[in-house]
Parts: sequence; C-alpha cells; structure tokens
Amino acid sequence: MLLCDIGNTSYHFLNHKHDYKENVKTFNPKTIQETIYYICVNTEVKKALDSLDNWIDLSKFIDKDKYYETMGIDRIFACEAISDGVIVDAGSAITVDLVEDSNFEGGFIYPGVEAMQETYKSISPVLDYPFNYKLDLTQLPKNSRDAISYGYLKTLHGEVSSYEKQIFLTGGNAELLLNIFPDAKLNPQLIFDGMKKILQEHI
Amino acid sequence: MLLCDIGNTSYHFLNHKHDYKENVKTFNPKTIQETIYYICVNTEVKKALDSLDNWIDLSKFIDKDKYYETMGIDRIFACEAISDGVIVDAGSAITVDLVEDSNFEGGFIYPGVEAMQETYKSISPVLDYPFNYKLDLTQLPKNSRDAISYGYLKTLHGEVSSYEKQIFLTGGNAELLLNIFPDAKLNPQLIFDGMKKILQEHI
Repeated sequence: MLLCDIGNTSYHFLNHKHDYKENVKTFNPKTIQETIYYICVNTEVKKALDSLDNWIDLSKFIDKDKYYETMGIDRIFACEAISDGVIVDAGSAITVDLVEDSNFEGGFIYPGVEAMQETYKSISPVLDYPFNYKLDLTQLPKNSRDAISYGYLKTLHGEVSSYEKQIFLTGGNAELLLNIFPDAKLNPQLIFDGMKKILQEHI
Repeated sequence: MLLCDIGNTSYHFLNHKHDYKENVKTFNPKTIQETIYYICVNTEVKKALDSLDNWIDLSKFIDKDKYYETMGIDRIFACEAISDGVIVDAGSAITVDLVEDSNFEGGFIYPGVEAMQETYKSISPVLDYPFNYKLDLTQLPKNSRDAISYGYLKTLHGEVSSYEKQIFLTGGNAELLLNIFPDAKLNPQLIFDGMKKILQEHI
C-alpha cells in the first residue's frame, strides 16, 4: 500500500514501512502506476493530481465539521491518528492541536525552529545564536543565548504543558523538541497513522 | 535637564516633560551645547559621543555585576527604575525582565510585533494575518488568524503571568500589549525614570 503526504516542498511517501521524499518541483506523479492514497496542502500539486485516477484524495473521507475551514489537512490527519492528547508538529511552523475523546478542541500555530532563528537574527545581529535546547527551563536566563532560547522554548513549553495531556511529537524537528518535552511520544509517522486509520474505516 | 536614550534607529530625548525622537542617521550630536545625560546601545554612535564633553554616559554609574555582560543598557536602566515587578519592553524585540528587592532575577527576549508578523508571513502566505489583540486567551482557537495570534500572544502571556508580579509595560508597542495585560502599568518613560534615579544618586 502506497501513501503520500504532500507539503509545500515535498512529496512524503510511505511504502509499507519504508518512507522517502521527493521534491515537489521535480517529481512527476504520473510515474506512479499503482493506487496511491494521498493528502495535499499544496494547491498547485492538488490540481495536477485531480486528473490522475490512481491518486486517491483521502481528505474527502474527513468530517470537516469537526475542524475549521482553513485548517491544514496535515494537521487534521494528525488529529485523526489519536483519540486523546496534544499533537506538536514541528515543521516550518509548529502546529499544536488538542484532541479529547476524538474531538478536535482547537490549536495554535507557532513559528518553526529555522523561522524563529531567522527572526531573532533579523531583529539584531547580537541575537544571532543557535538555540540552546539543553536550557534550564526552571530559571530565568542571565545570558543572551539562553535569553532567546527561553523566549522561544519556555513560552511554548509552558502553554503545551498546561493541558496536562500526553504529548505526541512529529515533524522534521520533532527530535529537537524532545529535549524540552522528554515525556512526549515521538512519532515521525503520525500523519501516516491518521491516513491508515481513515483508509481502514472507509475503503 | 536633557536626557537621551539612544537605540539602533533613533535618539530618544526627554527635555523636562517633553520627549521627541531624532533619526540616528541624520542627527548630529554636536548641535547640542548643554549638558546631556545619555545611554546608548548603538556602538557607532557611542564612539562619536565619547569625544563630546557635554554628553555624559550614565552607564558608568551602574553596578554591572548585578546584570550580565551582553545585556542591553536600555534593559538595565528599565530595571533600575523599579524595585519589584516584571518589565515588558515592547520594541523591535520584546524584552521581559524580572526584578525582586531591586535585584535583577533574569529575563528573556521574545520577538517584537512587527518581526513576528513577518515571521508568520515568511512561513506561508496563508498565515499573513494581522494579530488579533482582542483574542480570548482562555480558549484554544479554531481559525487561522486566532491560531497565530494565540501562538504569539498567549505563550508570552502565560510566561509573564506566571511570575505573579506587577507588570510594567514600556516601549513603542506597549499599548498593543495592554490588551493582553490589562492590569499592567503603562509607562512609556520607564527608561528615563531609571536614568533620573541614577542621576539623583550619583550626580
């Protein structure tokens, strides 16, 4: 069974247990002959896939009333993968979504690691430090590197921890955030898990 | 008495109760003849002022051991202005500093309003919304504009509120943040208050 989660920059495939990526700009979806189940946040790619019969859009099986209109389909499928907990998906943005009794209870969007690093640098060259993920979150900092690390990480940590829920970490920078959420479940394939669940229920 | 707080982009003057700004690029400090007390985070301007006898650098009267080496002198003078509380200085960065019994207890640096707006926009054009300062901070959002506003404002709010201290709001965007910190004391001249205090103690 072939699954694909398409973002703004890449096709992320899962072929049984093997996952790999292809660049959105160079990959031709017509090269795939077998049936493939996908979700896609990229509007241009979506248009191209609509004309290919073997590419099946799983988003049509979602009860959209459970979510909100402009919510990314990747966030929705991560939510479908769990019945209770908070999902922290650390990509170009960090999306945080709360699920209780299989209901989406809301969520927020925080800048991703690279974007925030750029932000501090753009404010002043004296703030151009790599984040310190080993930072002591229980103490207010007294040096510049920790002052920006705390500003980025502790504020996020405080909000996410306040829900007192199991945390599910996914996305390209999930392992970095494991430093500040050591009790989180790391699951790089959470979105694929949601896709498999929807597939089993509907196909 | 003439005071001046010099940042990266402007000279901020206080002449008795009247305050005004001049651009760092166009203003010539030699045009001022009377004695003027200043602080300066701008290293180039600082060099130029060192040769002018009537420009008196107030930073030399600070006990630097109370702070940390790379801490901005504007943050230090805001801290000197209060004996107890948390200072939120909302400029190009938002600096948050905790003071207890006239001791600096640490602080952190968060992106300013304009910088963070740019950050979301740079991540994706679908996140290019103005922040909603009237957001309900007690509910997880279910729309895109509130999802980024909550990501920016609630995370900051949670951290700052956790100190359970009087909040002092200053800086160019202080009034915007008054929406989420309604019990804060708004004081656009907090740094000048710190400068006056140091002046009285030492000159």
